[in-house]
Amino acid sequence: MKISILKNVLNEAIQHVSKAISSRTTIPILSGIKLDVNHQGVTLTASDTDISIQSFIPMEDGDQTVVQVEQPGSVVLPAKFFVEIIKKLPSQEIHMEVKDQFQTFISSGATEIQIVGLDPEEFPVLPNIEENQVISVPGDLLKNMIKQTVFSISTHETTPILTGVLWNLAEGELKFVATDRHRLATRSAHLETSEGLRFSNVVIAGKTLNELSRIIPDQNMLVDIVVADNQVLFKVDRVLFYSRILDGTYPDTSRIIPTSYKTELIVDTKSLSESIDRAYLLSREEKTNIVKMQSLENGGLEISSSSSELGKVREEVTVSKFEGEPLKISFNSKYMLDVLKVIDSEQLTIAFTGIMSPIILKPADSSNALYIILPYRTTN
Amino acid sequence: MKISILKNVLNEAIQHVSKAISSRTTIPILSGIKLDVNHQGVTLTASDTDISIQSFIPMEDGDQTVVQVEQPGSVVLPAKFFVEIIKKLPSQEIHMEVKDQFQTFISSGATEIQIVGLDPEEFPVLPNIEENQVISVPGDLLKNMIKQTVFSISTHETTPILTGVLWNLAEGELKFVATDRHRLATRSAHLETSEGLRFSNVVIAGKTLNELSRIIPDQNMLVDIVVADNQVLFKVDRVLFYSRILDGTYPDTSRIIPTSYKTELIVDTKSLSESIDRAYLLSREEKTNIVKMQSLENGGLEISSSSSELGKVREEVTVSKFEGEPLKISFNSKYMLDVLKVIDSEQLTIAFTGIMSPIILKPADSSNALYIILPYRTTN
Repeated sequence: MKISILKNVLNEAIQHVSKAISSRTTIPILSGIKLDVNHQGVTLTASDTDISIQSFIPMEDGDQTVVQVEQPGSVVLPAKFFVEIIKKLPSQEIHMEVKDQFQTFISSGATEIQIVGLDPEEFPVLPNIEENQVISVPGDLLKNMIKQTVFSISTHETTPILTGVLWNLAEGELKFVATDRHRLATRSAHLETSEGLRFSNVVIAGKTLNELSRIIPDQNMLVDIVVADNQVLFKVDRVLFYSRILDGTYPDTSRIIPTSYKTELIVDTKSLSESIDRAYLLSREEKTNIVKMQSLENGGLEISSSSSELGKVREEVTVSKFEGEPLKISFNSKYMLDVLKVIDSEQLTIAFTGIMSPIILKPADSSNALYIILPYRTTN
Repeated sequence: MKISILKNVLNEAIQHVSKAISSRTTIPILSGIKLDVNHQGVTLTASDTDISIQSFIPMEDGDQTVVQVEQPGSVVLPAKFFVEIIKKLPSQEIHMEVKDQFQTFISSGATEIQIVGLDPEEFPVLPNIEENQVISVPGDLLKNMIKQTVFSISTHETTPILTGVLWNLAEGELKFVATDRHRLATRSAHLETSEGLRFSNVVIAGKTLNELSRIIPDQNMLVDIVVADNQVLFKVDRVLFYSRILDGTYPDTSRIIPTSYKTELIVDTKSLSESIDRAYLLSREEKTNIVKMQSLENGGLEISSSSSELGKVREEVTVSKFEGEPLKISFNSKYMLDVLKVIDSEQLTIAFTGIMSPIILKPADSSNALYIILPYRTTN
């Protein structure tokens, strides 16, 4: 293998694939990035077995020559050093040559580097996914759906299936569900899909979805998604992102979502968020995060918290619509703030069915998202 | 105590004094901020016994009424909660009232807060420093002198005196020295001082100097410094910053600074810094940080490092002036990078007296700073 390549392009591809590198891998070859060079361009691959990322650099980008190939070939280079040194090379032009026993020589300006490379044959082969069922999702929508659900996953490894987000697709509706048993987040969106395309019980690790989000560019482009037996493939521009589907059956959460409410009210999302944030500051000192919410006779909503050592916070939030019975409930304010941070509608509907029933939160202007928080049982 | 006060002004004063709050204090009153209100304004004080900071808020700022005092008085409020809640209050206007047993009521917009206050009589009294020996230093010069020396202090509590920076003043020259026994940094500056003003062996903790730097504003204003028996007082605008002087005698470092050199060369600071940074990346993987520097027959300077597992880096840096014997030396590249980061001259003089003697670094265009790094004894 012998090539010349532009530093910024190589660096960008390295940044993409390096998200799949685990610093704690026990398999030496997986601490490396594989480079494959042919006359079409350079392909970089990294994998931690749960996630694999591949990024392709074509020979040319528009009018610009990006890669010049003198000799095709492959090598695996230790990721940690390779990632950092490429970023810091002095010149845009980088020459790379692999010699005997995968010794790799890199030069740029007055810098000469020799890296002990590894045998590319030892690198795991990526899953072969048949692309007969492809759905396309706008990148910003996908990022938003991830952001609006992934915070509710469980972090306990005792229930591995709950550390993922459930994806279901039926009749053109893609739906995400995440729960840690104390709270639940759902978000759905209508997509243009080919008729009859559907899947269920596709559970993808929250960690993986966060990495995927970072790879999706801010410019709005389509992400192609292919679901196979135990793998999902995301195609983002020239990056292929493979993720394992978590084993197991996701619990049925449909029963815990109430369908009728005793109380329903609409408030301004920002006002509520700021009020609960102040009450949270105090409740945090008690390490309980408990905040109380109750309707007032004047039609307002009182948010309060108290700490035996520190004092009290009392807030009043204006309610723009109130229907049903008076309300009084205590909850984990951290969970509530997590929801308020990701709801992107100006007005928010809060619904209750009783003091010990879940609190429902949803955007006032849309039915595409719904959040549930279990209340605290308190004595006063 | 009963006042109205503007949120942004109170918040700014809180930010200043809160730098003196230690999160690990065992003395409950020191986890608080003291407020003293009289008809001149509001004074905030915080202290961790090593550092004390006081910030004064006058009644008016230009045309703007900042504080309205209905009733003077004092209270101590728990810093952690007070700092955060003031930042997040909904309105610019804040009302504060201290009632029985230092219960403090704060209101702003629709927010009402009650804080359990503490008795201000329990708060330690600040040292009384006579201001008969004042030196004035431009804020940006003082920040720079701190930055250019403080990184060389020792972090080992076994030699407490070396965890500080030594300050000496004689004949209008203020000089800072810091060393951890492996490296040394000195920086001096000429000041306009009243005749005969001098001090020596004033050692101020590096941690304290970093906090002081954060309080000095970017607009260039004079910082007044008063040195007393065991305290230094820094006056930065309306903020008084008191620091304890470290106990003990700072070692005499003058003997270890060579006065004649066998080799002297001048290089571009940025080129050298970038080259050593790349060699450092590799040496870091070996956990030694050892980088080698040697003069080449072609007149250049070679920077190199090698790792048995990873490979090699070789760099060539252009030398603009070379005098004396050939040079070959190994050193801790992290120490060298620390110096290169703070030297603000474009060209740098490197001087040596022999393979096992210290390496000297200084700005090529000035004699106000000098850095020493001890070499590594290596076999090849």
